[in-house]
Amino acid sequence: MSVGAVPKTIEWIGGLEGHVVMIDQTRLPSELVMLECRDVQTMWHAIRQLSVRGAPAIGIAAAMGAVLGVRDCGGLDRDGFLKKLEEVCEYLASSRPTAVNLRWALDRLRRRASVYTSPRDSRVPRLTPGHDPTEIKQALFEEAKRIRDEDEAMCRAIGRFGEPLIRPGSGVLTHCNAGGLATACWGTALAPLYAAHGLGRSFHVFAGETRPLLQGSRLTAWELQQAGIGVTLLCDSMVGSLMKSGRVDLVITGADRIAANGDTANKIGTYAIAVLAKAHGIPFYIAAPSSTFDLATPDGSRIPIEERDPDEIRRGFGPLTAPPDVKCYCPAFDVTPAKLIRGIITERGIIQPVTKSRIASILREWPILPRNRAAKLKSCTPSLGE
Amino acid sequence: MSVGAVPKTIEWIGGLEGHVVMIDQTRLPSELVMLECRDVQTMWHAIRQLSVRGAPAIGIAAAMGAVLGVRDCGGLDRDGFLKKLEEVCEYLASSRPTAVNLRWALDRLRRRASVYTSPRDSRVPRLTPGHDPTEIKQALFEEAKRIRDEDEAMCRAIGRFGEPLIRPGSGVLTHCNAGGLATACWGTALAPLYAAHGLGRSFHVFAGETRPLLQGSRLTAWELQQAGIGVTLLCDSMVGSLMKSGRVDLVITGADRIAANGDTANKIGTYAIAVLAKAHGIPFYIAAPSSTFDLATPDGSRIPIEERDPDEIRRGFGPLTAPPDVKCYCPAFDVTPAKLIRGIITERGIIQPVTKSRIASILREWPILPRNRAAKLKSCTPSLGE
Repeated sequence: MSVGAVPKTIEWIGGLEGHVVMIDQTRLPSELVMLECRDVQTMWHAIRQLSVRGAPAIGIAAAMGAVLGVRDCGGLDRDGFLKKLEEVCEYLASSRPTAVNLRWALDRLRRRASVYTSPRDSRVPRLTPGHDPTEIKQALFEEAKRIRDEDEAMCRAIGRFGEPLIRPGSGVLTHCNAGGLATACWGTALAPLYAAHGLGRSFHVFAGETRPLLQGSRLTAWELQQAGIGVTLLCDSMVGSLMKSGRVDLVITGADRIAANGDTANKIGTYAIAVLAKAHGIPFYIAAPSSTFDLATPDGSRIPIEERDPDEIRRGFGPLTAPPDVKCYCPAFDVTPAKLIRGIITERGIIQPVTKSRIASILREWPILPRNRAAKLKSCTPSLGE
Repeated sequence: MSVGAVPKTIEWIGGLEGHVVMIDQTRLPSELVMLECRDVQTMWHAIRQLSVRGAPAIGIAAAMGAVLGVRDCGGLDRDGFLKKLEEVCEYLASSRPTAVNLRWALDRLRRRASVYTSPRDSRVPRLTPGHDPTEIKQALFEEAKRIRDEDEAMCRAIGRFGEPLIRPGSGVLTHCNAGGLATACWGTALAPLYAAHGLGRSFHVFAGETRPLLQGSRLTAWELQQAGIGVTLLCDSMVGSLMKSGRVDLVITGADRIAANGDTANKIGTYAIAVLAKAHGIPFYIAAPSSTFDLATPDGSRIPIEERDPDEIRRGFGPLTAPPDVKCYCPAFDVTPAKLIRGIITERGIIQPVTKSRIASILREWPILPRNRAAKLKSCTPSLGE
């Protein structure tokens, strides 16, 4: 986020000798506490204990953490430095072993460093094994900031393309947190809202609490409120009643993976909201970067759905609220079929209608996305998600 | 409930000198603790602190509590006894001032007592003001037990009529707790399940947790598990995904009020489930006693919907899980239109299709329900609900 006086989710303060400041999301929504990371150990714990969460934000944190980990290792030559970088990356990767975006960011730093050992670009100097690594250090620092800046640019582009959908006085429903707290800036689903708000447009947001982990109440309601955007919180069971009351004009949610035909996996509950939107004639949009498309997956039936720990239901937030041994159905995601999705707002434009041929032709046509690269991108840049 | 070794929700042990035993529902689902009430004060606290809840069960508790309150007042003559009864009823009514069923049960006891002061039936002796009130005391005791027995008969009748809908091997979804814990016996929505289980039929129940107050996880999952019926708990947001997976063959929920055209108010979330059931071709049934029909209300748009305390969402599990001052949308009920309801299972049969004319003609035709009495009944015997 970066609307008004709201602090940014994560940012680097100063030059290479500076430090990282992030919102400690474990303290939300009770209080806004900023966490300073001046060494890689503090960053490891911040990622581990979910002070920073959301795939893009974790990737940024990991990249910045790696810079913190190698910048103070004076006296090392090129190879000693590269060995140290490898150790730091392995260490950071262990903070959340299943976070794909974390590994993607660290791999990007590794590749950046490797450029100096075997440069393909004549402008990059080749550093011999015994060379001083200061130049690599600086390059890694720039790369970490670039990862953050690219994420911010993506969020702002989604915001710009999606913003015209937010009509003055309208009610917009969202689910989970695909917002600024998960990214460098505006998020994906919330980006059009921040963009419209920035243009002075007046509208109201309804945030579903998003059981079991309550990202809607803990995070989305908080960040919208901080930004001065009117928000009303509701339980997931109240969405049908709210739509029937006529107060919802538009639904926008994020996405975890979008199949080649447009079927979209997102936080559990999204599918039901899409069905309800259809029944009430309310347009339902997905907002996600183009890297979320997985063209190697033909349709939603091929997307594996993770089952979560039953205690996320039985012990919601501490006390036991169900028989301790009762069986639970607890999928992390569900799949919304393309036919229920009016459009997909990406950083390159809105894909509408959502059909296999339209997705394929548009992903091919966009000049800055090389042919056939979307599927490959997927493997290294997954989108938002806990 | 009264399946297998599961204790009854509330019952009177012994004769007039006996006592009341109930399941202390404040201790569920962590532990099964029985609460004994031997005086009216204990009963007042039991009702007040929600050890007993659900409109029918509260009515039974109030009637039994009134008997506890007057049975030990030796030495009073007829008028002294009636004055004492009035005091006891006023006292019990103050335990939950808005519980309509509580007042209905107490009024029924008052009317029963008044029979002895001005009998219309020649078989009832007229007691003069100075007369010994022992006979009235016994009559009140019988009346309290009758209120309980009638409720049990209603539950069992709904169970008998609804049981054929539960096909072997099927999956049945329910919402909230319209079960044995809210009544003398099997409840309404759960009655067909208990009946089918009693016949040895095998099936599986899915219980939505029912935010904000979690009656589904705290109560429904518990009582079905106690009865040996297979049950899986899920968050309300997971219903769509579950239906899409093909595991739900039937939905049955209770009702708080049914308008003349069949539009039905029930716990928030019911409407969304009905829409989802329709979208997946799954039959959706309501189970409720005929007293739930409010023929004076033409359709659902006329049913007022209570808004609950926002902290039920913001502090649902105890700790704060949302910004403390965030606006909330928190209706207690929603209205499911008749066109989404396949049938209404009552203690007198299944009303199907659910249309105004069908409801009117069937409520007229049933011989034991006098013409035009349904609407009047409504005012004194509301159905299940928190």
